[in-house]
Amino acid sequence: MANKAKKHGLIFRPHFKTHQSRIIGSWFKQFGVNKITVSSVQMAKYFSNDWKDITIAFPLNIREIDSINMLAKEIQLNLCIENLESIDFLIKKLKFKVGFFIKIDTGYNRTGIANDQYEVIDEILKKERLSEKVNFLGFLSHAGHTYQAKNPGEVLDIHKDTLDKLSVLKNYYFEEYPELVVSIGDTPSCSISEEFDNINEIRPGNFVFYDLMQLNLGSCKFDQIGIALACPVVAKHTNRNEIIIHGGAVHFSKESIKINNSVVYGILVKLNKGGWKNYPEAFYVTKLSQEHGTLKVNGKLLHEIKIGEMIGVIPVHSCLTPNLMQKYLSTEDEFIDTL
Amino acid sequence: MANKAKKHGLIFRPHFKTHQSRIIGSWFKQFGVNKITVSSVQMAKYFSNDWKDITIAFPLNIREIDSINMLAKEIQLNLCIENLESIDFLIKKLKFKVGFFIKIDTGYNRTGIANDQYEVIDEILKKERLSEKVNFLGFLSHAGHTYQAKNPGEVLDIHKDTLDKLSVLKNYYFEEYPELVVSIGDTPSCSISEEFDNINEIRPGNFVFYDLMQLNLGSCKFDQIGIALACPVVAKHTNRNEIIIHGGAVHFSKESIKINNSVVYGILVKLNKGGWKNYPEAFYVTKLSQEHGTLKVNGKLLHEIKIGEMIGVIPVHSCLTPNLMQKYLSTEDEFIDTL
Repeated sequence: MANKAKKHGLIFRPHFKTHQSRIIGSWFKQFGVNKITVSSVQMAKYFSNDWKDITIAFPLNIREIDSINMLAKEIQLNLCIENLESIDFLIKKLKFKVGFFIKIDTGYNRTGIANDQYEVIDEILKKERLSEKVNFLGFLSHAGHTYQAKNPGEVLDIHKDTLDKLSVLKNYYFEEYPELVVSIGDTPSCSISEEFDNINEIRPGNFVFYDLMQLNLGSCKFDQIGIALACPVVAKHTNRNEIIIHGGAVHFSKESIKINNSVVYGILVKLNKGGWKNYPEAFYVTKLSQEHGTLKVNGKLLHEIKIGEMIGVIPVHSCLTPNLMQKYLSTEDEFIDTL
Repeated sequence: MANKAKKHGLIFRPHFKTHQSRIIGSWFKQFGVNKITVSSVQMAKYFSNDWKDITIAFPLNIREIDSINMLAKEIQLNLCIENLESIDFLIKKLKFKVGFFIKIDTGYNRTGIANDQYEVIDEILKKERLSEKVNFLGFLSHAGHTYQAKNPGEVLDIHKDTLDKLSVLKNYYFEEYPELVVSIGDTPSCSISEEFDNINEIRPGNFVFYDLMQLNLGSCKFDQIGIALACPVVAKHTNRNEIIIHGGAVHFSKESIKINNSVVYGILVKLNKGGWKNYPEAFYVTKLSQEHGTLKVNGKLLHEIKIGEMIGVIPVHSCLTPNLMQKYLSTEDEFIDTL
């Protein structure tokens, strides 16, 4: 990802919400990364000892102004603004200067100002020009609807649409703000596409591990997945070819995808010394309750896998599993903490 | 629930996996509770200072034998067994005496020996009789399929089927084991039913808070729900009547139910000094990503609710939300920690 950013002349500001770990974060420095993205003020605080330019890619929560002021004193803090209330509040309450991006919605319809709502953007910028405390940095967008794509072609279509919309916006404001940064972030587009016209910055996060959802989407290959949950086998049920693991919603979180019309929470891998390898056939976690996971296997595997054995499961969504587990074991047998 | 247990002459062994809190646990003592259920060895350890009779209602994980031995030394520890490998392992590795339940599957098809598999049960009991270290306590079942019921009538049908199956089993083994305990656990049955023929013990957990899933199932009334997640409003989108809260999958967990064919992650309530009240109309959390929640409201409410305001959301599944939040604020303004 760092090479792709370099190749296209993009600022690489990886999102650290996936790994949430100071140690894993430090590995990015050897790739020249010096700016990062997080999704909460709490996460910004956690990383602020090691990273001095942090964007919180989440709408400003005005209730956190005290923590924001503390951070803004220490680092280059960049916030996301999408309404007048927030910019008014900031201008009134900030004690130190912050940068801000205007959050743009190009079709995901989660947060942001629609890309053609120039009046709202103009009003925010008018307020910005009257204050010394806030500094407009550019437009930030997240095309999260690529996660609903059915194949890489659909990801590219959504990405193209995002680029088109952001290009129009950039051209509209470029004369007045020649240094404005256009920042996009979704891992599917950043992984699959080689076109970044008019984009200045990418903020993917999930690519650090990828997961079953990204594999299914075509963002990565199996051997690019960097995370598996180690789960002990606690029961086997021969009559239905099922294995029960200690690995449930409190370990994986309960994100699912549909594969062949069935709900799936993870895919089985075989743990080995250096990590894991995949099985020639796909075996899925098909049910998940608070502590239990149910794996559908075949008779041969049911026989091979022993009670008490540790098996590996690639989670559906690798941003949620580390948040619950709060600790990694590296393939070099080192424990790594999270936030 | 304590009164219902008393009325029916049942041992009340509440499941503490929902609240996971020593302080909330202590509130049960005034209702005469002195035996509890947990879902992991880790949870048993956490509660073992205050509770001296704990059942781990999860299949034995043989890899945790050291912790099990430590616990078995201190308290009356009761394990769940559903295969010969586990009982063999226990008999070989236990240093202190434990009780065990045989886990029975009456149709949920998650864990347990099918209720009519007498040969497997007999084999386990044969091994038990040869060992001083393991003490057969009875049969433990969890009719988790009541959670898939569409109405209280369906819950009662499943419950009746469970009672019938467990009665046959109890009668079969009663002569040889006149003190055997038959233990059931699901909150829907324990909440809705008044029939507990041949049952000796109930282990509900979720009822301590209930949640939107239980409300939808008919297990509780709205004013019996004892938990809501306080979430700050960070954005509003007038064109689609949507409110964005800082409250996502890392706060709620990603459990959903369908209401009127739509996926729902929680229901809006109005926070007030003593707790919260419901709105006359139902407004739901309709989308959930890592940190964002999206609430569908109406124009009037969208106007009323301000950016920065704290709103309340009853979660779909109250067993998962405290596990993520790790702290409660009581209606008396006290902070209460979890595990």
